[in-house]
Amino acid sequence: MLYTEIPTQRPVTPLLDTIDHPQQLRSLGQSQLEQVADELRQYILYAAGQSGGHFGANLGVIELTVALHYCFNTPQDRLIWDVGHQAYPHKALTGRREQLVTIRAKDGLAAFPAREESVFDTFGVGHSSTAISAGLGMALARRYQKNPCEVVAIIGDGAMTAGMAFEAMNDAVAHNADLMVVLNDNDMSISCSTGGFAKHLAAIWESGQSVSIDDDGQAYVQSHPEWTYNSRLHSAATDAADNLFKAIGFDYFGPFDGHDVQQLVQVFNALKKRKGPRLIHIYTVKGKGFAPAEADQIKYHAIGKLNAVAAKTAAPKYSDVFGQWLCDEAAQDDRLLAITPAMCEGSGMVKFAKQYPERFFDVAIAEQHAVTLAAGMACEGLKPVVAIYSTFLQRGYDQLIHDVALQNLDVTFGIDRAGLVGEDGPTHAGAYDYAFMRTVPNMVIMAPKDENECRQMMHTAYLYPGPAAVRYPRGTGYGVEIQQKMTALEIGKAEVVARFNDQYDECITVLAFGSRVNASVEAAQQLAKQHETGVCVVNMRFVKPLDEQLISELADSTALFVTVEEHAVMAGAGSAVNEYLAKAQIVKPVLNLGLDDSFMHQAAHAQMLKQAGLDAQGIENAVNQAWLRHIQAV
Amino acid sequence: MLYTEIPTQRPVTPLLDTIDHPQQLRSLGQSQLEQVADELRQYILYAAGQSGGHFGANLGVIELTVALHYCFNTPQDRLIWDVGHQAYPHKALTGRREQLVTIRAKDGLAAFPAREESVFDTFGVGHSSTAISAGLGMALARRYQKNPCEVVAIIGDGAMTAGMAFEAMNDAVAHNADLMVVLNDNDMSISCSTGGFAKHLAAIWESGQSVSIDDDGQAYVQSHPEWTYNSRLHSAATDAADNLFKAIGFDYFGPFDGHDVQQLVQVFNALKKRKGPRLIHIYTVKGKGFAPAEADQIKYHAIGKLNAVAAKTAAPKYSDVFGQWLCDEAAQDDRLLAITPAMCEGSGMVKFAKQYPERFFDVAIAEQHAVTLAAGMACEGLKPVVAIYSTFLQRGYDQLIHDVALQNLDVTFGIDRAGLVGEDGPTHAGAYDYAFMRTVPNMVIMAPKDENECRQMMHTAYLYPGPAAVRYPRGTGYGVEIQQKMTALEIGKAEVVARFNDQYDECITVLAFGSRVNASVEAAQQLAKQHETGVCVVNMRFVKPLDEQLISELADSTALFVTVEEHAVMAGAGSAVNEYLAKAQIVKPVLNLGLDDSFMHQAAHAQMLKQAGLDAQGIENAVNQAWLRHIQAV
Repeated sequence: MLYTEIPTQRPVTPLLDTIDHPQQLRSLGQSQLEQVADELRQYILYAAGQSGGHFGANLGVIELTVALHYCFNTPQDRLIWDVGHQAYPHKALTGRREQLVTIRAKDGLAAFPAREESVFDTFGVGHSSTAISAGLGMALARRYQKNPCEVVAIIGDGAMTAGMAFEAMNDAVAHNADLMVVLNDNDMSISCSTGGFAKHLAAIWESGQSVSIDDDGQAYVQSHPEWTYNSRLHSAATDAADNLFKAIGFDYFGPFDGHDVQQLVQVFNALKKRKGPRLIHIYTVKGKGFAPAEADQIKYHAIGKLNAVAAKTAAPKYSDVFGQWLCDEAAQDDRLLAITPAMCEGSGMVKFAKQYPERFFDVAIAEQHAVTLAAGMACEGLKPVVAIYSTFLQRGYDQLIHDVALQNLDVTFGIDRAGLVGEDGPTHAGAYDYAFMRTVPNMVIMAPKDENECRQMMHTAYLYPGPAAVRYPRGTGYGVEIQQKMTALEIGKAEVVARFNDQYDECITVLAFGSRVNASVEAAQQLAKQHETGVCVVNMRFVKPLDEQLISELADSTALFVTVEEHAVMAGAGSAVNEYLAKAQIVKPVLNLGLDDSFMHQAAHAQMLKQAGLDAQGIENAVNQAWLRHIQAV
Repeated sequence: MLYTEIPTQRPVTPLLDTIDHPQQLRSLGQSQLEQVADELRQYILYAAGQSGGHFGANLGVIELTVALHYCFNTPQDRLIWDVGHQAYPHKALTGRREQLVTIRAKDGLAAFPAREESVFDTFGVGHSSTAISAGLGMALARRYQKNPCEVVAIIGDGAMTAGMAFEAMNDAVAHNADLMVVLNDNDMSISCSTGGFAKHLAAIWESGQSVSIDDDGQAYVQSHPEWTYNSRLHSAATDAADNLFKAIGFDYFGPFDGHDVQQLVQVFNALKKRKGPRLIHIYTVKGKGFAPAEADQIKYHAIGKLNAVAAKTAAPKYSDVFGQWLCDEAAQDDRLLAITPAMCEGSGMVKFAKQYPERFFDVAIAEQHAVTLAAGMACEGLKPVVAIYSTFLQRGYDQLIHDVALQNLDVTFGIDRAGLVGEDGPTHAGAYDYAFMRTVPNMVIMAPKDENECRQMMHTAYLYPGPAAVRYPRGTGYGVEIQQKMTALEIGKAEVVARFNDQYDECITVLAFGSRVNASVEAAQQLAKQHETGVCVVNMRFVKPLDEQLISELADSTALFVTVEEHAVMAGAGSAVNEYLAKAQIVKPVLNLGLDDSFMHQAAHAQMLKQAGLDAQGIENAVNQAWLRHIQAV
């Protein structure tokens, strides 16, 4: 069935309702699977409308999920869903159907498979391209334990461009591991897939031939004159005479129609009889069964809640502020090139990509390569800008150190989604970037207090002739005026943004970083009403280099230093302040506020900040307590 | 010529001596190139004997290097040497011939290409698999600048197993970049290459066919009945009908004999006329031309100085202590599996690999995969141990956070080469691991004061049921007795190792980490003679969790805290101490000793420690100054 609307009432799903464990699915007749799939699709449409969240990928794997749980003895057999944003049908079939409407909400189901949530979630995912490695680990472990089971890693064509997937395939062949990889080829990552691999999959398609398998496990070639070349986004780079998977030593089967549940069941059952590394190539349609999503796959990668109250603010997203800066800077300086690892839309680069196609480089899901590519461009005197989420920069960390910072190359990083990220949960939190970047020599690191400062800081980082990063949060700014004229900040200079109770000699000095500046000012205002002491708030702007001079100047009148950041306290920006105070022999009490030493579960961003004690009220409370202790101690 | 001895006298190299710039090489007749290569080989043999250092790989690329500089207009054309430990001939032909004997020494030539050393070193390397990314960046930059040049990335078959190389190839095809990749296939990384990729190269070899190119740039297939299958270490997984490079969209040529300089010249000249991404597959012999190295390629990967004074200590290497622990623990617990990303020898695992082949996993140069593979194994109840150098763990950082720590999986990390690494220089320094690991929840991080504690800590980490790491230095221990019986340390407990001048109420408290404990004790002994104060030294053992209780107890009598570590001060272990002192409202002066915020150049390890002020004398001096300042201030 092709649906055209997201239902607002829970659909009637009599057969699906009987499945609280995949064992119940497996007890059905094979002829009933289409009905299960259809009911599941309706239900997913409904549930995703209630919860918001990933959408297109889930609709694309309905039949695949049904076939997998029908053919394999889950959870004893292991399914590993790469990235995991296509796991809603999997969750629905494994006892979590009715909870699906709570996905991504506080205390609801996780946005991704999570081991703590269900035994069917064999591996926590969220970042792409880990499934083959994890699955291989399981397969080798079970072989060693002489207790083999079927291990199936399901990975998209977009995710397979990340080198890690290639590393795992290489190793699977080394061990001749009994591992099944399902390549779910929908010709997309979040954006369109890109590169030689996508062209190779196109070549396989254009060949009009598939490798099928009969029920005795014998492979044979089938012709498909009905396949049309222009149904793929990509064109082939070469012909399909050379098959990449076979070259590296996998048994290759497919491509198969990933929406033909009967064929999938036949193929999985036939391939279970084989050993060694096997790859099953299926093609699916992102958004399958929902007409608007099939027509606009990028837009429907994820959706908001149907009944969400429209956001009150007209403030722009930080991503869009970044994107506009990129366009404006590019207009002024033709040395600017921009790089994204498959996050054109998320990073706010759509406009830039259209305006400057020859200066825009989507390198596929390949963070390691993205960073070193930038280093190579910088070697030729250009000024590359890498747009990357904080959590994904973790993938390019060695390249940041070794290829960029060590050579002091002029690469600018726009680090999005820094800090807590709300509903995406701990897999996507950007809680460690200050720590892992500031320990690296030559880095300049900034964090803006608002969207205008974000723009000016990007300009500052861009002008700085070495590696420089601006880390900004997920979501929107404050609606402040954005100055079109770009003005570089002085490197390493902070600004005092608020002083209260100036009449007192002694002061609480709040050194606030990035997104926590405004909340700190709010807190300070309240604190000043309650205590007979000055309260001073500094927008630190730079995590590295710190404004040591200002800290020293303020130290004389400071009775208590407070540092505030949306980042782990451990090794974070406050920790940098501590180091300076020690170095400068400024012996004063310090209160370091930030994220504690735990992974935070999903919730709305505001809820998480409150929970972490990093909203204005939380900051006020913590400083209050520290101040009272200080007064008692003196 | 096949040589059998490393010359101790500089060989006579009349033709080589005329080449101080590759332009002079290019002015020679093509028939003279064999002589250049022969003289260069003799000279490299001599120079490497004088300096020590990488050996086999350099002998393997003599003819390649001569041919490249002969055919390409360096430095305007860009050569990028992946890993770079095969760049000695390149350095010799580009004006640094006579300095080659200083390679790896303090103030000598760098062990790897370095941009600051020469315009011919287009990209600083050291970590593998970056060359195609960097080269692609240069090629795209030059295309954008409308100033194209030839860009040639030279990469080994071992390095190509790292996913990053695959990411770069994928992207090169996306842009149809004018990039030449020379695959230098010697069937080895430091150890034997492993995996599907190695088997694929074997398949190409076993096909007995190569793709050649005539001088007009036309490709044609040649048969080679003379090739023998058993000359490769690997056997083919499949036949060569499927060519991986062609599949992903590269033009493929080869394999060619990489020691036939005339053929190489013909091929490079012919391929210069082509555009787009091209891969030239050559086979070479590691150690070529030196009989002992050809016979034992692993042993001769690198050599020591010929005239080096034998080390005075009989103390074991930390790597070997790790390796012995691994064997002993494995004997006690059959859940132990061990993983190395292509560093079996360097990580001291040869004995384990022989003793427990079914429990040993060399996953090729694939740090990302190595970490997530371990996570997958841990999901099945096994206890994987990942042996990895500190500097290479940077490549698996996201996997450490996302796949191991977030799921709190039971993976043990043996982190070798932590701290300064001497002659390998800044590309291999392990100066950031405390910082990037301690910010991650669930991690336990230890550093041993000596080789016995290293063994006991590995045992402790292994027993700990979550992610735990022990980081130990390059080189040898102190010759202390190693207790065979393994005893777990209490998690998070430090030990007071020395107290001097106990009669005073006030104390300098030195909190020392890992390799700096013994030097701190030495320094403390001297300090105690000079000052009327107690001096207490703590072996902190745990960077995370810190022994907060002990710090609090010692705080009462402490007038000055000192932290000492062989790691960046920024975000390091001392910084963790600062955070605790702030949290516990212990307001005392602190001196944080460690590496400053710069990349340190190569030198002997002891020289580097001295330069960093982290030997006993340096610690003593720094504490002395801080103490005098403190006394003046009070």
